[in-house]
Amino acid sequence: MTFANVGTLGTVPGRRDELVALLTRPRSELAAIGCLLYEVGVSEDEPDVVFVAELWESAEAHQSSLALPSVKAAIAQARPLLSGVMDGLRFEVVGSPLRASPSS
Amino acid sequence: MTFANVGTLGTVPGRRDELVALLTRPRSELAAIGCLLYEVGVSEDEPDVVFVAELWESAEAHQSSLALPSVKAAIAQARPLLSGVMDGLRFEVVGSPLRASPSS
Repeated sequence: MTFANVGTLGTVPGRRDELVALLTRPRSELAAIGCLLYEVGVSEDEPDVVFVAELWESAEAHQSSLALPSVKAAIAQARPLLSGVMDGLRFEVVGSPLRASPSS
Repeated sequence: MTFANVGTLGTVPGRRDELVALLTRPRSELAAIGCLLYEVGVSEDEPDVVFVAELWESAEAHQSSLALPSVKAAIAQARPLLSGVMDGLRFEVVGSPLRASPSS
């Protein structure tokens, strides 16, 4: 079942764009391991927050991505940029009005 | 700029699946007006919540979708299913590790 992982990553003031650059660095291994969508974004209303919206082939695919050397390295690089304030939500996709029938 | 709208819709206990059915009813007019992605989902951890994750060509495209007769009708149909507890986040997409370079 397609798994959605959406999060907000608080950053140290002034370091948001460094985190954006890190998260948007091309990583083809993510698609290879089952990442369907990985959008990184910002909002004028929250200058010290980076948003991520991800879709994965399954929760397991998402989980296994965290063990990838490149992802571990990115997490380590990101750590000094983060304020520690994080939030998010996760869900299993059950359908879409853009598709003919509810997909699993 | 691609606009992301992610939300959680609290439902009246026991009526979550009715809301899922309503939200996943095929609506080709959404794509026609600039909807790039519209995923509806659930989580075992939150039995009375429906999750939506949407991507739009722009915030304006999202805004104009709310004026579509079919969307207005769906909102009216959804109202009795909702608990009133809602949350969400919105952001502008600035890139993706799945794309060669940061897209606007």
